[in-house]
Amino acid sequence: MRGTVLYGPRDIRFEDRPEPIIMKPTDAIIRLSATCICGSDLWPYRGIQSIAQPTPMGHEYCGIVEEVGGEVRNIRTGQFVVGSFATSDNTCVVCQHGYQSSCVQREFMITAQASVLRVPLADGTVVATSDLPPKELIPSLLATSDVLGTGWFAADAANVKRGSTVLVVGDGAVGLLGVLSAKQMGAERIIAMSRHTSRQKLAREFGATDIVTERGDEGVARIKELTKGIGADSVLECVGTQESMMQAIRSTRPGGYIGYVGVPHGVSLDGEQLFFAHVHLHGGPAPVRRYLPELINLVLNGNINPGKVFDLTLPLNQVAKGYRAMDERRAIKTLLDPSAKN
Amino acid sequence: MRGTVLYGPRDIRFEDRPEPIIMKPTDAIIRLSATCICGSDLWPYRGIQSIAQPTPMGHEYCGIVEEVGGEVRNIRTGQFVVGSFATSDNTCVVCQHGYQSSCVQREFMITAQASVLRVPLADGTVVATSDLPPKELIPSLLATSDVLGTGWFAADAANVKRGSTVLVVGDGAVGLLGVLSAKQMGAERIIAMSRHTSRQKLAREFGATDIVTERGDEGVARIKELTKGIGADSVLECVGTQESMMQAIRSTRPGGYIGYVGVPHGVSLDGEQLFFAHVHLHGGPAPVRRYLPELINLVLNGNINPGKVFDLTLPLNQVAKGYRAMDERRAIKTLLDPSAKN
Repeated sequence: MRGTVLYGPRDIRFEDRPEPIIMKPTDAIIRLSATCICGSDLWPYRGIQSIAQPTPMGHEYCGIVEEVGGEVRNIRTGQFVVGSFATSDNTCVVCQHGYQSSCVQREFMITAQASVLRVPLADGTVVATSDLPPKELIPSLLATSDVLGTGWFAADAANVKRGSTVLVVGDGAVGLLGVLSAKQMGAERIIAMSRHTSRQKLAREFGATDIVTERGDEGVARIKELTKGIGADSVLECVGTQESMMQAIRSTRPGGYIGYVGVPHGVSLDGEQLFFAHVHLHGGPAPVRRYLPELINLVLNGNINPGKVFDLTLPLNQVAKGYRAMDERRAIKTLLDPSAKN
Repeated sequence: MRGTVLYGPRDIRFEDRPEPIIMKPTDAIIRLSATCICGSDLWPYRGIQSIAQPTPMGHEYCGIVEEVGGEVRNIRTGQFVVGSFATSDNTCVVCQHGYQSSCVQREFMITAQASVLRVPLADGTVVATSDLPPKELIPSLLATSDVLGTGWFAADAANVKRGSTVLVVGDGAVGLLGVLSAKQMGAERIIAMSRHTSRQKLAREFGATDIVTERGDEGVARIKELTKGIGADSVLECVGTQESMMQAIRSTRPGGYIGYVGVPHGVSLDGEQLFFAHVHLHGGPAPVRRYLPELINLVLNGNINPGKVFDLTLPLNQVAKGYRAMDERRAIKTLLDPSAKN
């Protein structure tokens, strides 16, 4: 089998890797229909997050079950499944509270930019569709695995309700799907912060009612102008930098909610400033498994088309090209097709 | 009139001050039945929070309306009122969301350790009782002005519900009334962190089911032991130090809630740690005005007795003695009686 390995900053290789096998009776082996590159993969790719050794990459996946371990009950060979980027038993007390991405048995998936994948705790991690889905829905189903699930969690954590005024900080794929999620949850007004024409366009398509190009103090002032002077009810922070987090905190009304899903890098919050901002703050790794059944249904029923965030599709063996395109912001998100030829 | 002024670290004086007068038509003048010293007053008293000049002190109060401005409609001369430590118009869009302590017209009360007090925005800041309350209820009614309202907000912000497992970090008056609040909201288990026998006793009286004396790593381990290994559903942070905030964050289960009301001093939160803790965080200056009608009723109906946190009562002119007793932790909270003689 061949898979993706990061050797160092901007050094992505597609190379021979051991064939995944069942290691525990709760494992499943999945032949991937599609995988992709995540915005968070760019942190180590750019060397901002260091790696100690050559590191396999990828955590978003969907595909056909090829084999299951002896204790797997919920899925069977031949089924199409989508899984979360974090494994979960879906039975522990943390999972019961809906926080499967902090499951007591959690592992983060890290080898999904490959043709075949071992998924631990398969029963609690993946969700099967009743039939094999049509090929044109694969990108949107793949999106539920992380990028949509994460945008959805941002909106949920930010308490988006019918009639809410929502701000989305970050115009990456997660931010754009945060817009889509807020729209689905009934937001009345959705303000997207973006300076890129193509991303603004997709944000509008997903439901954004306003686009703000200013940042920092000017960005805050602009948001206040649009929100009766007080800030947004719900703010989705989808970047993970100090700047984006402060943009979020300063743009939320007193008593408003911030859902933050950008993995924080070098972020430090001043306690006193947060105190007087009077906001609700919730975030973390999205409990995608909680949302998967609902999101898969929304895709299968044609209610949403999150796959539109994939504006570049490449054969899996051209994965390095996909990283470059995203690093240079030429692509919003790259879908990798294991079955495509060069 | 005489009032309390802080001149520098541990230099509290009770001295002649200008008689409060109506300055705006929305003001009221209140002759105080009781006032008190707040844990937050100790920050400047100890010199941890610096003051630029001699500073009048005090923000908790109740008493009899002596005069009202021409635009005051909701209260009249002779009525007994309790007010919030933060003024509010109770009509602006922030107030409508229930965040009166971030009202667009907010001022913090700062001269209440005195015999007479000017209250701006009286209609939106104070609440009158229908009759003059009996003298023995004055301490509990005074408590609603800040210390109970703040403990109540901590419990509300921490999402305490019927059946919740609650942890209270901090055994000051706010923490103790956080215990009382959690009990009122139906918490099943209330763990109080305290090392002081008298405070442990009051915590138990208010509803604590468990007392934990350990702190830091050992404290976290003990809380985990008591909560199925995962942490508490709701954590009330009632101190405001780095140590207490980390105690709270590390003791909350994934998906659990922290209500923090200790004014943060030197607190800095690491974004990545907060992200993976997966907690909800909400706090700030308590919107006491939102809760006042309910809390006053609970006191008048005899459901709660928050005045028990006052374990020292002094004539107002002995206010300096009250500060010393609280600074040295000999008293939980000092009530100051303006009518008492030496």
